[in-house]
Amino acid sequence: MAVTATAPKDPAFQTRVEASFAKQGLMRTLGAYILRISPGAVDIALPANPSISQQHGFVHAGAVAAIATGYAALSLMPARVGVLTTEFKINLVAPAIGERIVARGRVVKTGRTLTVTQTEVVAETAGEEKLVALLTATMMAIEDRDGITD
Amino acid sequence: MAVTATAPKDPAFQTRVEASFAKQGLMRTLGAYILRISPGAVDIALPANPSISQQHGFVHAGAVAAIATGYAALSLMPARVGVLTTEFKINLVAPAIGERIVARGRVVKTGRTLTVTQTEVVAETAGEEKLVALLTATMMAIEDRDGITD
Amino acid sequence: MAVTATAPKDPAFQTRVEASFAKQGLMRTLGAYILRISPGAVDIALPANPSISQQHGFVHAGAVAAIATGYAALSLMPARVGVLTTEFKINLVAPAIGERIVARGRVVKTGRTLTVTQTEVVAETAGEEKLVALLTATMMAIEDRDGITD
Amino acid sequence: MAVTATAPKDPAFQTRVEASFAKQGLMRTLGAYILRISPGAVDIALPANPSISQQHGFVHAGAVAAIATGYAALSLMPARVGVLTTEFKINLVAPAIGERIVARGRVVKTGRTLTVTQTEVVAETAGEEKLVALLTATMMAIEDRDGITD
Repeated sequence: MAVTATAPKDPAFQTRVEASFAKQGLMRTLGAYILRISPGAVDIALPANPSISQQHGFVHAGAVAAIATGYAALSLMPARVGVLTTEFKINLVAPAIGERIVARGRVVKTGRTLTVTQTEVVAETAGEEKLVALLTATMMAIEDRDGITD
Repeated sequence: MAVTATAPKDPAFQTRVEASFAKQGLMRTLGAYILRISPGAVDIALPANPSISQQHGFVHAGAVAAIATGYAALSLMPARVGVLTTEFKINLVAPAIGERIVARGRVVKTGRTLTVTQTEVVAETAGEEKLVALLTATMMAIEDRDGITD
Repeated sequence: MAVTATAPKDPAFQTRVEASFAKQGLMRTLGAYILRISPGAVDIALPANPSISQQHGFVHAGAVAAIATGYAALSLMPARVGVLTTEFKINLVAPAIGERIVARGRVVKTGRTLTVTQTEVVAETAGEEKLVALLTATMMAIEDRDGITD
Repeated sequence: MAVTATAPKDPAFQTRVEASFAKQGLMRTLGAYILRISPGAVDIALPANPSISQQHGFVHAGAVAAIATGYAALSLMPARVGVLTTEFKINLVAPAIGERIVARGRVVKTGRTLTVTQTEVVAETAGEEKLVALLTATMMAIEDRDGITD
């Protein structure tokens, strides 16, 4: 992953990402939480449990994708500029089985309008981790339109 | 969408898709339900509500994707052959706002190992519907391996 | 494919798409040509031949993708607004074998900044056609920036 | 990119990848050549020139994709097992402008049937390189079926 090192444009990026995440009803419903926020990087964890499973008992691809879409993009946005996911692609390379699923999202390219992120998703079991998915997303910057500021 | 018309290989495809869906903890958690099952086609509905939202109050892209991944593939599998999602790509073309989100999945190609599905996702409001997302998925047939039969 | 019917914003859309296509060195090199242009729809043909093959003699996925990326988007752009491909995803559902490959691109959603297109690619042999690929692309409108007007 | 280090299953992997590449008519037509082959990694170069351009004079996205699809997968296949691209997704993060385009493909996951690769594509100008695209592909192993052995 070719990470473009970038300084945050909003010094309050950390509290901002936390506040935005707290507004996501789905994250609460799934039981996901933030592990780490730095400029251009956000890690999210999701404890595995039957309420987020697919038919074989693995964590559902939709739940894996939900914690892996390009949230890292928000950490680099100027104040009052929000982000919308315009598209993402996920490759599920192994069943999401384990105690906890961790998604490590990174900004790989920032542009005037579009930011591209890549996320590695691993499943943790007894201190070991295994790659389960790779996701690439395009996030669009929305500058205070329709009340979107995060 | 170039739909390959195909006869079901398992005459019990309908009860089988229903039983498999019922095992998905995530669908229950999100509040999703099946609207329609026919050979190569499965429609799933998801009532919008704050517990599945992203930060702007729209239905979260992860929830949209969760009901849109290639479940239609299972309707064409022989008995005891299950499916796993290997990858999917979603374009979110409008905010998922409305009373109910409906995902209409269709098998577009069946192969020995891989089945490709495409799903249109619309948001319904007061009897009107609006396209909100398009998803393409690749599903892998798993023949009774590791207990996977649906 | 849910096609959003849209009137062309540039009445000269047809000559414009033709002129833009003629500037694409790659299309000439591959031997591709335009079959049909209408608002929101462009069909491109590519005769199969060894100079565009992959290792098994099929038409190379890169050549298939080249004629299938979202050129239809340009047919709906206002005068002096150009398009750039920001991303695309292709599923290759059967080997591209035949006399001629035909890509039928359609605009499925137009937005202020982004246009989403979907393309079906078929291989023609003795008057029969077979689906070989499905492609979804996101095109970004560029308004006369850096000399980009098509 | 989480690269799964893997030993080659065919000790002749290098000559095999070279021989397979030499059979690709499209690579010769585009003017592409191999820079480096190691187990699970193949780098391909493509000198920029007007015969592979799109309408603005940049290297065409189809040509960029053509050199970036998952050729690295073949370097890890057992003898007589070939590969077919089943799908790929490319994000074009900057115009492909420069003297030479270089695609660095890596295997990120090998499975019984499917291998996932990721490729970074850079444009080189006067010794500097710039990221222009990221591609993720799924390659299917084909064991001597229909004469496919590379």
